[in-house]
Amino acid sequence: VAPFANLPSMNNLFFQAKARKGLSFEAIAKHLGKDEVWVAAAFYGQAKFTEEELKKLSDLLGVSSSSAVAQIGDNWFPYRGTLVEFPPRDPVIYRLFEGISVYGTAIKAIINEKFGDGIMSLIDCKVTIDKKENPKGDRVILTFDGKFLPYAKW
Amino acid sequence: VAPFANLPSMNNLFFQAKARKGLSFEAIAKHLGKDEVWVAAAFYGQAKFTEEELKKLSDLLGVSSSSAVAQIGDNWFPYRGTLVEFPPRDPVIYRLFEGISVYGTAIKAIINEKFGDGIMSLIDCKVTIDKKENPKGDRVILTFDGKFLPYAKW
Amino acid sequence: VAPFANLPSMNNLFFQAKARKGLSFEAIAKHLGKDEVWVAAAFYGQAKFTEEELKKLSDLLGVSSSSAVAQIGDNWFPYRGTLVEFPPRDPVIYRLFEGISVYGTAIKAIINEKFGDGIMSLIDCKVTIDKKENPKGDRVILTFDGKFLPYAKW
Amino acid sequence: VAPFANLPSMNNLFFQAKARKGLSFEAIAKHLGKDEVWVAAAFYGQAKFTEEELKKLSDLLGVSSSSAVAQIGDNWFPYRGTLVEFPPRDPVIYRLFEGISVYGTAIKAIINEKFGDGIMSLIDCKVTIDKKENPKGDRVILTFDGKFLPYAKW
Amino acid sequence: VAPFANLPSMNNLFFQAKARKGLSFEAIAKHLGKDEVWVAAAFYGQAKFTEEELKKLSDLLGVSSSSAVAQIGDNWFPYRGTLVEFPPRDPVIYRLFEGISVYGTAIKAIINEKFGDGIMSLIDCKVTIDKKENPKGDRVILTFDGKFLPYAKW
Amino acid sequence: VAPFANLPSMNNLFFQAKARKGLSFEAIAKHLGKDEVWVAAAFYGQAKFTEEELKKLSDLLGVSSSSAVAQIGDNWFPYRGTLVEFPPRDPVIYRLFEGISVYGTAIKAIINEKFGDGIMSLIDCKVTIDKKENPKGDRVILTFDGKFLPYAKW
Amino acid sequence: VAPFANLPSMNNLFFQAKARKGLSFEAIAKHLGKDEVWVAAAFYGQAKFTEEELKKLSDLLGVSSSSAVAQIGDNWFPYRGTLVEFPPRDPVIYRLFEGISVYGTAIKAIINEKFGDGIMSLIDCKVTIDKKENPKGDRVILTFDGKFLPYAKW
Amino acid sequence: VAPFANLPSMNNLFFQAKARKGLSFEAIAKHLGKDEVWVAAAFYGQAKFTEEELKKLSDLLGVSSSSAVAQIGDNWFPYRGTLVEFPPRDPVIYRLFEGISVYGTAIKAIINEKFGDGIMSLIDCKVTIDKKENPKGDRVILTFDGKFLPYAKW
Amino acid sequence: VAPFANLPSMNNLFFQAKARKGLSFEAIAKHLGKDEVWVAAAFYGQAKFTEEELKKLSDLLGVSSSSAVAQIGDNWFPYRGTLVEFPPRDPVIYRLFEGISVYGTAIKAIINEKFGDGIMSLIDCKVTIDKKENPKGDRVILTFDGKFLPYAKW
Amino acid sequence: VAPFANLPSMNNLFFQAKARKGLSFEAIAKHLGKDEVWVAAAFYGQAKFTEEELKKLSDLLGVSSSSAVAQIGDNWFPYRGTLVEFPPRDPVIYRLFEGISVYGTAIKAIINEKFGDGIMSLIDCKVTIDKKENPKGDRVILTFDGKFLPYAKW
Repeated sequence: VAPFANLPSMNNLFFQAKARKGLSFEAIAKHLGKDEVWVAAAFYGQAKFTEEELKKLSDLLGVSSSSAVAQIGDNWFPYRGTLVEFPPRDPVIYRLFEGISVYGTAIKAIINEKFGDGIMSLIDCKVTIDKKENPKGDRVILTFDGKFLPYAKW
Repeated sequence: VAPFANLPSMNNLFFQAKARKGLSFEAIAKHLGKDEVWVAAAFYGQAKFTEEELKKLSDLLGVSSSSAVAQIGDNWFPYRGTLVEFPPRDPVIYRLFEGISVYGTAIKAIINEKFGDGIMSLIDCKVTIDKKENPKGDRVILTFDGKFLPYAKW
Repeated sequence: VAPFANLPSMNNLFFQAKARKGLSFEAIAKHLGKDEVWVAAAFYGQAKFTEEELKKLSDLLGVSSSSAVAQIGDNWFPYRGTLVEFPPRDPVIYRLFEGISVYGTAIKAIINEKFGDGIMSLIDCKVTIDKKENPKGDRVILTFDGKFLPYAKW
Repeated sequence: VAPFANLPSMNNLFFQAKARKGLSFEAIAKHLGKDEVWVAAAFYGQAKFTEEELKKLSDLLGVSSSSAVAQIGDNWFPYRGTLVEFPPRDPVIYRLFEGISVYGTAIKAIINEKFGDGIMSLIDCKVTIDKKENPKGDRVILTFDGKFLPYAKW
Repeated sequence: VAPFANLPSMNNLFFQAKARKGLSFEAIAKHLGKDEVWVAAAFYGQAKFTEEELKKLSDLLGVSSSSAVAQIGDNWFPYRGTLVEFPPRDPVIYRLFEGISVYGTAIKAIINEKFGDGIMSLIDCKVTIDKKENPKGDRVILTFDGKFLPYAKW
Repeated sequence: VAPFANLPSMNNLFFQAKARKGLSFEAIAKHLGKDEVWVAAAFYGQAKFTEEELKKLSDLLGVSSSSAVAQIGDNWFPYRGTLVEFPPRDPVIYRLFEGISVYGTAIKAIINEKFGDGIMSLIDCKVTIDKKENPKGDRVILTFDGKFLPYAKW
Repeated sequence: VAPFANLPSMNNLFFQAKARKGLSFEAIAKHLGKDEVWVAAAFYGQAKFTEEELKKLSDLLGVSSSSAVAQIGDNWFPYRGTLVEFPPRDPVIYRLFEGISVYGTAIKAIINEKFGDGIMSLIDCKVTIDKKENPKGDRVILTFDGKFLPYAKW
Repeated sequence: VAPFANLPSMNNLFFQAKARKGLSFEAIAKHLGKDEVWVAAAFYGQAKFTEEELKKLSDLLGVSSSSAVAQIGDNWFPYRGTLVEFPPRDPVIYRLFEGISVYGTAIKAIINEKFGDGIMSLIDCKVTIDKKENPKGDRVILTFDGKFLPYAKW
Repeated sequence: VAPFANLPSMNNLFFQAKARKGLSFEAIAKHLGKDEVWVAAAFYGQAKFTEEELKKLSDLLGVSSSSAVAQIGDNWFPYRGTLVEFPPRDPVIYRLFEGISVYGTAIKAIINEKFGDGIMSLIDCKVTIDKKENPKGDRVILTFDGKFLPYAKW
Repeated sequence: VAPFANLPSMNNLFFQAKARKGLSFEAIAKHLGKDEVWVAAAFYGQAKFTEEELKKLSDLLGVSSSSAVAQIGDNWFPYRGTLVEFPPRDPVIYRLFEGISVYGTAIKAIINEKFGDGIMSLIDCKVTIDKKENPKGDRVILTFDGKFLPYAKW
């Protein structure tokens, strides 16, 4: 579909094979020994598989591992950040945006008060999603676990 | 400072009094029995204090509680979402944006796989920040805990 | 035509078959036991048919139900919100935009006064259109029936 | 507050008096014999009071009716549509926008199928909001009742 | 050429046949009993031919009338307003834009003074172009003849 | 009001005096021997009065003609085109925009067919508005009468 | 290459033939008895060759003159202004933009002081480029020679 | 007036004094031994007077030279390029923009063909305007005389 | 001047005192034992002085150190990144932008080839400027010295 | 991949051959006697190889040198600056943007203080990247070495 038209063709093969095999990201992630959010990110070209991971994945999905390595192996680096338009309009992604729009300055204030002048890294950062069951409606627990980086002075 | 020029004048008084008293959001939040991120959000006009909270807060900060109630009490509703420009350029807030830009489609995919066709609510959602100490550099744990809402059909 | 170039190819087949069979959305909706606005939204990729609905629809339109299920069945989730550019320039859609542009703050004020600090959900929301005949010119009655969601505090 | 900085100063006086008197739009509307959404729109400078309405309103609110007539009477015409930024970021108004973004093409299709080539007028249009109580959460019923206008040919 | 890439393919056939036959819009319009500006608008997908007009036109241009009816007949509605980028950069179209940019507020003021609170409809509106010969340089007479619509109150 | 905040202060004095005296643009235009649309344009800073016109106008409105000449006389040149945002959102002005958006390419085609490769000048152009009474609703006749300018070649 | 993807296909043939024959715009211009800047503009679809010029050019380049006439002959009018994005990012074109950005208001002031209220026409305008050799570095002499057009009043 | 609100206050004093004294840029430029376009640019904050020029100018205009030196003397550097919005909408400045929009790629092609891979400098560039009288309408001759800079390779 | 209108008022006092004392950033930096680029960044509100640095600086500039500490001391955190509009139009800053625009993908490619999947940190980064004298024209040596951060996987 | 879709097809062949041969830009640069950043820039169409360099490169990569010369030889000039969207969203390139966003005004101030009124050229500029090993994390040393150009006056 449209927002994903810019992915390397290998990634589209991965998506089709995943659908054909009826595999969830959770199942694939378990097979690779990785987290499902990270694996989904890599499917969308936002993270980089090692050669070994590419092979394991290709075997699982039944696609050519040599093509995978040739196209998105060592030689390739993710060109991140181009999938989501801003403001995003898909309601699922928009809500994340709304989270920053409404709570972003509060988050900055608390990070600065708790840690000093610096940022939460999104490079050394892990993103996870958990499902907390709740009779009034299940809850999505979305967590960013990122290293604090203090500003250099010179 | 500039990005906050649009806040109600009461909120600016709150910020000045907070600075004068040397109070952190953590301390204020404890006093009000609320979370520090939510309190910071309310300081930035992104959440609504009850009349009782306004009074408690005004007493703590030494500002007029009747002015507070008159200006941002029952009669007033937050006009949310205007503080952060997009893409944000302050590096702390930008990293949150980068989180969506890079991991947003993966997050959507996992939410849809785990919960079905719907969204994580940002209305019925709680945002918290924890500090996880780590010898290689402390880590920021930022959590969104939002209700899953399935799409209506009719 | 152009604004719809990003739909899954299955949806384009649905549109062509609908035209070929001369079926209105109203007729299709009756056949599926759904509302015509919802059905049109699903044709435009903005809502998700169940597998059963996909089969019924495919039979009615004379297209392959297995292709339909394979492409936009369980495995697929709508990527909503990308069809309409903003500001929209088609006059029919622009008038809806003008409605928000002119009456949006009034609507917000009344919702907040009547219901408190919160929103009208567009996830748990039903949209319907009725025709009210009138000698001076028929009238379009467009209704949004959405759940009120109060803001969480924590 | 900020998004309303562009209103004529008379309108700001109206808002302050309304707050001071503790009057809801519903109460004011009843007094004027108008609908509350329309009255709120006129407060926000998006509709035009007649001279008689201005006098009645000024009396109710305890402000100078001659100033009101001088500033926003016969001589003045609303410059509509400048209050809401697009995409709006206040969540209440954003949801309306999302309604068009997600269901706009479906609404256009149904209007065209039901009425032919033309539009729903937003000039000859009435907007109302009702509260439908519901044990699972009250519902907002937002209705646009606009005249259908067929396209001229020449 | 580029700005017209989004037209239905039938319309492109019309343009090619018009060129091949060396017919002006004026000649085609006469044949159809319509105005040349309206006919050009319909060629650009901004107006809707009746089935009878489609047949007459197809015969004149020597293209298949059944294809025309199938593609842009009853079943199809114009998705207007997407041909011109804004600000337009073609100098002919830019000058129209400049007309609004420079004289738009004056036009609004005069319409409001002459007619009251309302608009000139662009739905019930006829657009014509005449050539007035003049020894100092011929003049283009561009006229919009639109119905005045007063604002509803409720 | 807001969109006019950028006018020279003299022009705001003109507007206030016009309101105080209850004069229409039509009446002022007659007094100056000019068209009402042009006069309104000059009030909005989009055209330049001669010194003689400034004096006549100042006398009529009862404002200081020497201030007028000093501020917007010989020494001043209009900085045109900054009053209207694009797309305009006031519905009166938007409809003009919609006129170009929908009929702009048709207008270009007819101008080019009737006159050749060139433009309708908006510099040597006169804009007028007439009211055509009509039992089904009065009509606004908006006319642009501009010189055709052929493209230079060299 | 990309920015030129929207040209009529005939123009791309011209570019390829020009490259194959190793002809400069200067040489082609001499052959046609025109200026090189104008000829380059016509290659980029920003000016219109006469039928005679099209034939001469086609012969010189060895392409079919009947195709040229059929595609971009009498029947075709340039849709100008779509090649350059703004702000342009190619450094050669950006510098022209910077010229307006830095010196535009000064140029306007001097034109208005020297000529009165009006503009320099870009329709009746000739653009030329000369090379002035200079031991410290050759200089580009870029000249716009445009007719002054005074503003109409009415 | 509005587009110039960002100039240092000294520059606004210069403009007022220039108007009061009835001096043209041409006259001021002669007095300073500079070109009128450059002087106008410096008035608009787009170029930097030397201390000596500031003194001469202040004497001519009858303003305090010590204030001039203190505010925009050695210590100050122009922050260029912020006066003109893009696309500009004042018709005089827009026509310059249109010049690049229509002829920019042609100009680039000719500069590259005549000089090689590089640019015309807008830093080492002189801009002048001449009036060429002509019975059919005077002509504006606008010239950019800029150094050619070849691209470095390394 | 305008782009700096958003700085805390203390910073404006620093700028004025710096001008009054005729101190360069180089001199101030030496006094503080810091680099001149970093000091200029802190003047522009893009870095944070320690309390000790604020006191030293206030003494040097002859401004109140207690005001400085009260306003931009411990309690304050830089809201970075709002000074430069993008694309920047001041030619000095634009050239930096052009550097990324032209060489950005090449820089990314080399960083990825030399260091792997990750980024050059702009948080742990030092920026310096040196002057390299050269008979053909002095050269600016601008250096970014930033830590490489490899992407986390999880 | 997507952001590079606009490159001449020859450049894509170069990229594929480079991947197939497993050559780094460093290795290719050594072979050509050039710097690796410059070579990468030329691969991305942001710099121009001489004919001799094209031949050497084609031989090294095993592609047709005559095709290379025909397509991007003498006849072709780079259309620079279109690869990177702004703000860039790939985190590697964004950090460069953040460098300007945060430190741009400081860099301008220091360049102006050290060199006077002028710019650092990005045309006569060399860009290099070095790896400085460091036990706490290797560092990227990115250097721009550009000629200072003083502003012309006339």
